[in-house]
Amino acid sequence: MSNPSLVLNKIDDISFENYPIPEIVDPHDVIVEVKKTGICGSDIHYYKHGKIGHFILRKPMVLGHESSGIVSKIGSEVTSLKVGDRVAIEPGVPSRLSDAYKSGKYQLCPCMSFAATPPTDPSHENAPGTLCRYYKTPEDFLFKLPDDVSLELGAMVEPMTVGVHGIKLVDMKFGEDVMVFGGGPVGLLAASAAKVLGARNIMVVDIFDEKLKLAKDIGAATHNFNSRNGNYKDLIKAFDGIRPTVVLECSGAEPCIQMAVYALKDGGRFAQIGNAGKDVLFPIVEFSSREISLYGVFRYGYGDYKTSIEILRKNAQENIIDFEKLITHRFKWDDAIKAYDTTREGNGVVKCIIDGPE
Amino acid sequence: MSNPSLVLNKIDDISFENYPIPEIVDPHDVIVEVKKTGICGSDIHYYKHGKIGHFILRKPMVLGHESSGIVSKIGSEVTSLKVGDRVAIEPGVPSRLSDAYKSGKYQLCPCMSFAATPPTDPSHENAPGTLCRYYKTPEDFLFKLPDDVSLELGAMVEPMTVGVHGIKLVDMKFGEDVMVFGGGPVGLLAASAAKVLGARNIMVVDIFDEKLKLAKDIGAATHNFNSRNGNYKDLIKAFDGIRPTVVLECSGAEPCIQMAVYALKDGGRFAQIGNAGKDVLFPIVEFSSREISLYGVFRYGYGDYKTSIEILRKNAQENIIDFEKLITHRFKWDDAIKAYDTTREGNGVVKCIIDGPE
Amino acid sequence: MSNPSLVLNKIDDISFENYPIPEIVDPHDVIVEVKKTGICGSDIHYYKHGKIGHFILRKPMVLGHESSGIVSKIGSEVTSLKVGDRVAIEPGVPSRLSDAYKSGKYQLCPCMSFAATPPTDPSHENAPGTLCRYYKTPEDFLFKLPDDVSLELGAMVEPMTVGVHGIKLVDMKFGEDVMVFGGGPVGLLAASAAKVLGARNIMVVDIFDEKLKLAKDIGAATHNFNSRNGNYKDLIKAFDGIRPTVVLECSGAEPCIQMAVYALKDGGRFAQIGNAGKDVLFPIVEFSSREISLYGVFRYGYGDYKTSIEILRKNAQENIIDFEKLITHRFKWDDAIKAYDTTREGNGVVKCIIDGPE
Amino acid sequence: MSNPSLVLNKIDDISFENYPIPEIVDPHDVIVEVKKTGICGSDIHYYKHGKIGHFILRKPMVLGHESSGIVSKIGSEVTSLKVGDRVAIEPGVPSRLSDAYKSGKYQLCPCMSFAATPPTDPSHENAPGTLCRYYKTPEDFLFKLPDDVSLELGAMVEPMTVGVHGIKLVDMKFGEDVMVFGGGPVGLLAASAAKVLGARNIMVVDIFDEKLKLAKDIGAATHNFNSRNGNYKDLIKAFDGIRPTVVLECSGAEPCIQMAVYALKDGGRFAQIGNAGKDVLFPIVEFSSREISLYGVFRYGYGDYKTSIEILRKNAQENIIDFEKLITHRFKWDDAIKAYDTTREGNGVVKCIIDGPE
Repeated sequence: MSNPSLVLNKIDDISFENYPIPEIVDPHDVIVEVKKTGICGSDIHYYKHGKIGHFILRKPMVLGHESSGIVSKIGSEVTSLKVGDRVAIEPGVPSRLSDAYKSGKYQLCPCMSFAATPPTDPSHENAPGTLCRYYKTPEDFLFKLPDDVSLELGAMVEPMTVGVHGIKLVDMKFGEDVMVFGGGPVGLLAASAAKVLGARNIMVVDIFDEKLKLAKDIGAATHNFNSRNGNYKDLIKAFDGIRPTVVLECSGAEPCIQMAVYALKDGGRFAQIGNAGKDVLFPIVEFSSREISLYGVFRYGYGDYKTSIEILRKNAQENIIDFEKLITHRFKWDDAIKAYDTTREGNGVVKCIIDGPE
Repeated sequence: MSNPSLVLNKIDDISFENYPIPEIVDPHDVIVEVKKTGICGSDIHYYKHGKIGHFILRKPMVLGHESSGIVSKIGSEVTSLKVGDRVAIEPGVPSRLSDAYKSGKYQLCPCMSFAATPPTDPSHENAPGTLCRYYKTPEDFLFKLPDDVSLELGAMVEPMTVGVHGIKLVDMKFGEDVMVFGGGPVGLLAASAAKVLGARNIMVVDIFDEKLKLAKDIGAATHNFNSRNGNYKDLIKAFDGIRPTVVLECSGAEPCIQMAVYALKDGGRFAQIGNAGKDVLFPIVEFSSREISLYGVFRYGYGDYKTSIEILRKNAQENIIDFEKLITHRFKWDDAIKAYDTTREGNGVVKCIIDGPE
Repeated sequence: MSNPSLVLNKIDDISFENYPIPEIVDPHDVIVEVKKTGICGSDIHYYKHGKIGHFILRKPMVLGHESSGIVSKIGSEVTSLKVGDRVAIEPGVPSRLSDAYKSGKYQLCPCMSFAATPPTDPSHENAPGTLCRYYKTPEDFLFKLPDDVSLELGAMVEPMTVGVHGIKLVDMKFGEDVMVFGGGPVGLLAASAAKVLGARNIMVVDIFDEKLKLAKDIGAATHNFNSRNGNYKDLIKAFDGIRPTVVLECSGAEPCIQMAVYALKDGGRFAQIGNAGKDVLFPIVEFSSREISLYGVFRYGYGDYKTSIEILRKNAQENIIDFEKLITHRFKWDDAIKAYDTTREGNGVVKCIIDGPE
Repeated sequence: MSNPSLVLNKIDDISFENYPIPEIVDPHDVIVEVKKTGICGSDIHYYKHGKIGHFILRKPMVLGHESSGIVSKIGSEVTSLKVGDRVAIEPGVPSRLSDAYKSGKYQLCPCMSFAATPPTDPSHENAPGTLCRYYKTPEDFLFKLPDDVSLELGAMVEPMTVGVHGIKLVDMKFGEDVMVFGGGPVGLLAASAAKVLGARNIMVVDIFDEKLKLAKDIGAATHNFNSRNGNYKDLIKAFDGIRPTVVLECSGAEPCIQMAVYALKDGGRFAQIGNAGKDVLFPIVEFSSREISLYGVFRYGYGDYKTSIEILRKNAQENIIDFEKLITHRFKWDDAIKAYDTTREGNGVVKCIIDGPE
């Protein structure tokens, strides 16, 4: 039996390939039959540019890291899962021996093996992506989905968890007022997570009105603001005069980062989630004189996936957010390359989901 | 009896004036006879430029906010001090009714009355400075000096506490490796405080070799580096290959801020203590992808003075730091204007102390 | 005009009295016309026993500390409220000058003036209770109720906030599994708060089945257990094998405290909210060898009222908890003594609310 | 070549045995030639009683878990150590796959393999002790000793780290006032650690005057108190009226635990380090009404050994504590059984150190 996979060979070149089915080696290994995979902005970035920062595509790479699936085989010591379980896949596996792992912050592990991410250290094996039929990973990087959470939402756990991790780093509390900059999938999912976690007022800021509308339509934003329509004073005014205590910056845009510092309340906390791509001019005098703090956010760590899945479970019961509305495009496995091209070209895609091979 | 005071009238214009002696009004008021006052860089800045950021000198202002003295009179309900006690003066008094005060973070109080700092809100009374004979303040903003801590060191509690506050904001732990950028008084005192608090390796970075030498001579720095002599890789090399987990940035210089981000260990914490004066180009990609966090530091808050005084007490017993070496110039009260001019011109001044009126 | 008040004169002796209407003295004072007041177990305790621990009734005391009302007069500097605002009353006012207040933990203020609580220090004025027409307090101890939160629920903010404070002390996170011991008003409100704050599974434990049923009926408990029906192993079994990471102990009963330690997951946190009344035999070996932590909870502090009101606001929108079901008895002002007697005798009272004077 | 080992066969029965030399299997394994081993109270307890709580000796067990030695062989991927390095041995190795390990709290790992500790789960291999010539463990459970820290002090890292872990759990800050109950080795080392970490006043409490004297002689205690000489009020008086903010309870004695609660300042934190052996009558009303918190302490976790070694390094430079005075007895390897008997009988032993085999 075969393991069809979607491979990015080099810039502008994606093809279907067939690889061997992975085998259980470690007794804690699990093999998942992948069912739903979202396309991430980073995938498109590699497709167009062949690299993101230090991560440079040097050889063909299986795409995909936002996936859910069904457990198809388990190692002899697996106890937390059984064949047939529906799971979300956490796509980065750190070294168990690293000091970062031992300290409880595995996101900082320098030997992380992350799906569909080129290794920067040539001694590492290329991380396989999840856009294939069978994907192998240790049991503790798979998370059982509650019955009332669909496999499609399971594929959205990964991008939501980036925001959840930022929310935890700034230690957002129930009842805080939050501003989210950037209305793409990560921003909208961060706003949604903040809502379910009990943020009081949530302002989403973007330059596209349709994203701002969507932020309200799904139930995440209580307020929104088109940053083309004014400065930070207008922003605060549009937020009913509220200065947020928390900023989740998901745009990476220099004007947003600057505006966010001015908008924050004294003593506020700022999570930098979006990738700015380059140095930014930073208002550090304003920042320091009001004792703001800024937290760099990189992927996610211990407990974050579990929180995201609990957000989806709670939401399934209380109907706070209409997550389905974020899935604007769906493709069959055979149309996966078309899915990438459609997303690459824009077309109003928010989140595009590709089915696993039949 | 009179209250001689040193007054900054406007740019380039300091004079001696005489004001009424303050009177006990509130039963918790204390009147201190000021004995030793250090000159702060901010004093010189007002002297030369008449403003610092939003703080603009609009009318004559008594100078001085780094002072110690002897209690000369106490209100009827004062219990923590008695006449004759030697004390360090905390020069900023917040509003007891502010939400910041209630929350335990009084440094964020918008109604802070801070010695020798022009009010930005014209409804506030101009805060009197400490360069006078008699200074009035509530008892809980005075801190009794241990017997083995001199009044001169008492005058250095204020600038040291800025660093102590930053050290607390980044939650520096015993045994951490620390880099201090900026070898002025605040930087040297921050490095000294870090040393007494148990930092393991301490690197001081500056562009003047004599400051770097002083950092070692007083016993604060285990390593030093002239930032003219290389980039962040050279810096780490000079630190025996150690990446610090904590940065105390006391220079406000853009190249230092940038270098600090690159030097920090993954997950490191960065206290911005120095006033940058303007926006800086900030390496936010490097910052975020390694989950660094940045803390704006503004003055000091609850418990910080107490910590500084305990640092001086412990040091008096264990002789870790030679704080005396930081006091390079001393002036009598009658020569106070000369003290300001000497400091303004440089002259190798690290810390200049002015005696109170005789 | 007069200020009718309900006064506990001594054990078994309550009467209506008339006192002068309080006057604005401090410019931040506010006078509230009290509209709804809940009866607390402590009120009944004073009624029956004349004391609780160190708090001994030595002279007549106005009853009531669980109240809401309408602002009837404001001091000249009040900015956060206006006449006609509906508010919940926080009944304890600490000293602004205490070190506890300055540190951000005003619940530890030794000079707290708490409504309907006898002073232990004879130099203090007896704290007036809220069971009167006009009650005076500083503006920052009043909390505006959202439009969709009734005055009756406003009167339940006080007992709910005790649980909220405990939840904060143990730093309960979204998605945790929680056990609540004690199904009285405090326990049920703590469970309700935990639910709205995002606890995943919530087990309420009591010895009365009707309380356990009510815990489920209002939507707070996902599980319940009659502690007469087994030991801690049975308890865990009834919780689907889950060991809680958080315990909110609201019974004060020794067997519950012991059972809770055994039930908790390794590293779990335990908030002691209920008043045990006496020393308890504590399983400290089990406690230590599994690194559990125990937090003493006393009333509430900074930010807690705000959190409770946000819980009620969110609940008004999302209908998670049916708080109304907790109000089992209602009395007019003129029947206030009957309200106390009814509650004292049991009669299935969960929460009894007394209207303010007409 | 052979691996002589000291074996506890059953109650009252210790013998020398010879076992095979361990072999490098995992590439991160290190083999240490053990040089110095302290005798722990738990060793004596097993010798006399054959069990401690759930830990029951069911088959012969190599003794010893407080050891230092010299690296004699390293696995192929070991990078942090080389042959000849002097190291302290952390004697408990958790499972890398446990959730506790992943979370950064490996002390809670249910599969911990701990030297000289009988497994309670019969499926586990018996943990070998360190009283042998060659001991194998992964590199990250070995800690290089600084040049100025002797192998004897290296053997005291283990018992000191228990106190260090407690100090971290209660988050003791520089300048706090600390009470240590119990003047045995763990208590004295905890007090010493607290001193080097910057505690201000340190009171050691015990019932034996010679232990109280030693606490002062080594430089750890600033105050001491024989708990036979009074109640908690006398205790506070003997502490110059200071109520401690931190308690390190190392006695496990019920009267000490009770006294500690009464002595603590409002809001104080209490680390239960000593093993009480049984339930204790706990003053939970006093505890709760003053918002004290109690932390169960079990062994030690991530970063704790590193902190202890940094304490010893700093102390070697600043001569704060005379740790040597704690070593009252030394025995050659061939006299190891005599060492156990001597310690078992008392004889004024504080810490007894056994040399490794020659």
